[in-house]
Amino acid sequence: MEKKASESLVVMTELVLPNDTNTFGNLMGGRLMYWMDIAAALAAMKHCAAPVVTASVDNISFETPIKLGNVVHIEAKVTRAFNSSMEVHLKVWGEDAIQQYRYKSNEAYFTFVALDPNGKSRTINGLIPETEEEIKLHQGALRRRQIRLILGGKMKAEDAEELKALFVQQK
Amino acid sequence: MEKKASESLVVMTELVLPNDTNTFGNLMGGRLMYWMDIAAALAAMKHCAAPVVTASVDNISFETPIKLGNVVHIEAKVTRAFNSSMEVHLKVWGEDAIQQYRYKSNEAYFTFVALDPNGKSRTINGLIPETEEEIKLHQGALRRRQIRLILGGKMKAEDAEELKALFVQQK
Amino acid sequence: MEKKASESLVVMTELVLPNDTNTFGNLMGGRLMYWMDIAAALAAMKHCAAPVVTASVDNISFETPIKLGNVVHIEAKVTRAFNSSMEVHLKVWGEDAIQQYRYKSNEAYFTFVALDPNGKSRTINGLIPETEEEIKLHQGALRRRQIRLILGGKMKAEDAEELKALFVQQK
Amino acid sequence: MEKKASESLVVMTELVLPNDTNTFGNLMGGRLMYWMDIAAALAAMKHCAAPVVTASVDNISFETPIKLGNVVHIEAKVTRAFNSSMEVHLKVWGEDAIQQYRYKSNEAYFTFVALDPNGKSRTINGLIPETEEEIKLHQGALRRRQIRLILGGKMKAEDAEELKALFVQQK
Amino acid sequence: MEKKASESLVVMTELVLPNDTNTFGNLMGGRLMYWMDIAAALAAMKHCAAPVVTASVDNISFETPIKLGNVVHIEAKVTRAFNSSMEVHLKVWGEDAIQQYRYKSNEAYFTFVALDPNGKSRTINGLIPETEEEIKLHQGALRRRQIRLILGGKMKAEDAEELKALFVQQK
Amino acid sequence: MEKKASESLVVMTELVLPNDTNTFGNLMGGRLMYWMDIAAALAAMKHCAAPVVTASVDNISFETPIKLGNVVHIEAKVTRAFNSSMEVHLKVWGEDAIQQYRYKSNEAYFTFVALDPNGKSRTINGLIPETEEEIKLHQGALRRRQIRLILGGKMKAEDAEELKALFVQQK
Repeated sequence: MEKKASESLVVMTELVLPNDTNTFGNLMGGRLMYWMDIAAALAAMKHCAAPVVTASVDNISFETPIKLGNVVHIEAKVTRAFNSSMEVHLKVWGEDAIQQYRYKSNEAYFTFVALDPNGKSRTINGLIPETEEEIKLHQGALRRRQIRLILGGKMKAEDAEELKALFVQQK
Repeated sequence: MEKKASESLVVMTELVLPNDTNTFGNLMGGRLMYWMDIAAALAAMKHCAAPVVTASVDNISFETPIKLGNVVHIEAKVTRAFNSSMEVHLKVWGEDAIQQYRYKSNEAYFTFVALDPNGKSRTINGLIPETEEEIKLHQGALRRRQIRLILGGKMKAEDAEELKALFVQQK
Repeated sequence: MEKKASESLVVMTELVLPNDTNTFGNLMGGRLMYWMDIAAALAAMKHCAAPVVTASVDNISFETPIKLGNVVHIEAKVTRAFNSSMEVHLKVWGEDAIQQYRYKSNEAYFTFVALDPNGKSRTINGLIPETEEEIKLHQGALRRRQIRLILGGKMKAEDAEELKALFVQQK
Repeated sequence: MEKKASESLVVMTELVLPNDTNTFGNLMGGRLMYWMDIAAALAAMKHCAAPVVTASVDNISFETPIKLGNVVHIEAKVTRAFNSSMEVHLKVWGEDAIQQYRYKSNEAYFTFVALDPNGKSRTINGLIPETEEEIKLHQGALRRRQIRLILGGKMKAEDAEELKALFVQQK
Repeated sequence: MEKKASESLVVMTELVLPNDTNTFGNLMGGRLMYWMDIAAALAAMKHCAAPVVTASVDNISFETPIKLGNVVHIEAKVTRAFNSSMEVHLKVWGEDAIQQYRYKSNEAYFTFVALDPNGKSRTINGLIPETEEEIKLHQGALRRRQIRLILGGKMKAEDAEELKALFVQQK
Repeated sequence: MEKKASESLVVMTELVLPNDTNTFGNLMGGRLMYWMDIAAALAAMKHCAAPVVTASVDNISFETPIKLGNVVHIEAKVTRAFNSSMEVHLKVWGEDAIQQYRYKSNEAYFTFVALDPNGKSRTINGLIPETEEEIKLHQGALRRRQIRLILGGKMKAEDAEELKALFVQQK
């Protein structure tokens, strides 16, 4: 029973409170990752209808700081289902509601594993991408998975065919 | 005024409480990243003696789950100072104090930027690695920086000389 | 400068954690109202582009309890702007992601006052309802306002023309 | 086995901390309702000696804001026991301990249902009001219950005999 | 301008939530001391009408554990005002509202210093004990102060006349 | 099976966030005791390999306040194991990472009881002090235990041989 990518969408809105900020009054990176992890986990659960655990987090760059009193918007959607894991794509915006100004904060990819009632990993139903963006994210998921396996020491760089092309493309 | 890597060491110990766990009674990834971000930021501040903000987080794999009531040990140490940023290496263990059993949870690299009082990035003093492990981490920091720049879209893959070697090493 | 009702929409998603629940493992009403107040305040701020404070909360009935580990979905949208106050309508659902089951929890109306930088109430721009539901909520806002004024002791029951009709409609 | 109203009294004192406040440094309405819900639930439990869940909250007006660093005083007492539900009356004050100044913040009525060990509603012992204020609150509870039922759509306005009188009292 | 001991009374009620408990489901000592410190600080502020800081905490024994879901009652009252410090007496009870059972948990003495706007200690108005218990606590405050000074290394044991009597009373 | 004192060492590092501070921006005493209790409990658990509960806290003096944004360092180590209880010694420092300045905040002794699975106290393995400081703390533990018993009303002052010497030493 396959499900559409759009069915996994989770939209989260949080207000930046004093305890979430550093001495410059900016949202701390760790607090943002805490929210992102929950939003991504909920998206993964909506797709696979099972409990999930965070398996890995890809490189995240924090571009624009989000200020105290501003709003954090997180959108999370599953990009691809592998055998027992799923990749979730996250987009994060800050918003100054007084200035009516919304700005991109960062993007990220989290990977989750679905568990059966004994806590063992279980098979996941397929995912159908529909929009152009969903299809592009679905295709890129394979390449990002290779990067993850190499960075995690589980695949040799020279076996990563898709990535190799990136580094020797002039041939 | 250079400082030794060991001077930046931060050791953090936390107890996993009910609100930190998912329905399997395991520590949520986002809560762990929240603690890691604070430990790493403190290590970076100890090195550069200035406020810092999280610039990026490298790929993290969560291997062994940490259970409710267990202890989280985090060690954070700066590996290398660049112009205005620092890379911090983190090691995370779980510990079951009743079973007297300590287990590796994960490793990670966080990057921080030092700020002047106006919130602009500022120059950072150098870092002197001493032990064999510190020297190895110091050297690897260049390669990880290239990966970060490529993954962040700020460097072309074919310009990353160090990485290129990994993918075409048979030549 | 009027704004559309739909521009004020805020969607919030929260996970029910152990500390949010009573001894039956159900979300406590007070914790839910805490989230509702923030969602509604953000909707009000998006409409009026000014800081807001909660002026009043209408009767809330808690129908179906939301369980530990379930998800809380809150949608908040401004229904009508008065001189210096706004009424916000909230819909709350619970969702069991494992059972793929979503259920209505409750509905509510919160009223907010917009403040100028000195903390005094200020005039609010108008609101344009567009959909059938928005128009209905916009119309009902007058009646609910009368109820609020009567219940708050600021209007005599016999002066509330709209309400009076409800009680003596057989005439 | 009836119990006196005064036996259910709960007095709660809380300090307003930074994370409880909005950008004006005033206690957020949602945080106050969180405390009120707990105080009221404890009063209800003291009366019925059983677990309780919040059934409904009556209209609340927030009059005077409570400032950061000030103290919140909440007094909760059961006004009347119905078949399986109880109405609890709350009075809330703010206090500036430095200025030695105490001010009324708001009043509210919360309704709770008592549960048996299977989570079903159960019969509640009667309540004896003693003081003049307790007796007045006990009598008013019937009228407020009619308002709740009408506002919750469970009673027709024309069947609410007590309320009808309010709107057509000139006859 | 002296004030009565009874004017400083603070009554605090808290519900023990999952995150407040250890693996046996009992309230952690540190969480209880957090609440006790706030209750005592508020009592001290009510007496001296100035900000206060915790100067010291006397020996505390935790007798009966307070269970998850039970209620914590704290009563704090100033016993005596010294030059710039005050001693506050605390009584703590647990209560199982379902079993209608209230039990003594512990007693404690906290000492606070009053601060002027520059953060320097300031003179405190006197305190008038009225009830028998208040008078007894007021008298005992001198002896407890000697113990504090000796235990804190600020007074020699042989200079503590009141205490000396305790150890050599048979003479 | 005896264990060394050093095996029980716990190092905890915390960042002082806005919600941890009073109106002077200093860490509240109660929040510090919350962290100290957890650090000490973990040290006790590491020694006895069993769950523990806080039995008592000795007099604590708070010397230097720790500021918002500063770091709290806590070191906890068991000093002596009695029949079913352990004494833990804590040292607390504040650190201003920007000023590169570390300062002593306070010292304390917490006592814990080890529990068997039924929640009854159980026998604890012995502790071997090694360094000069550990030996001194180990010896002083007997005297502090007498003080605790006297202050807790469980021993008569004239039976406390070690303490008596302090008060009548001129003989």
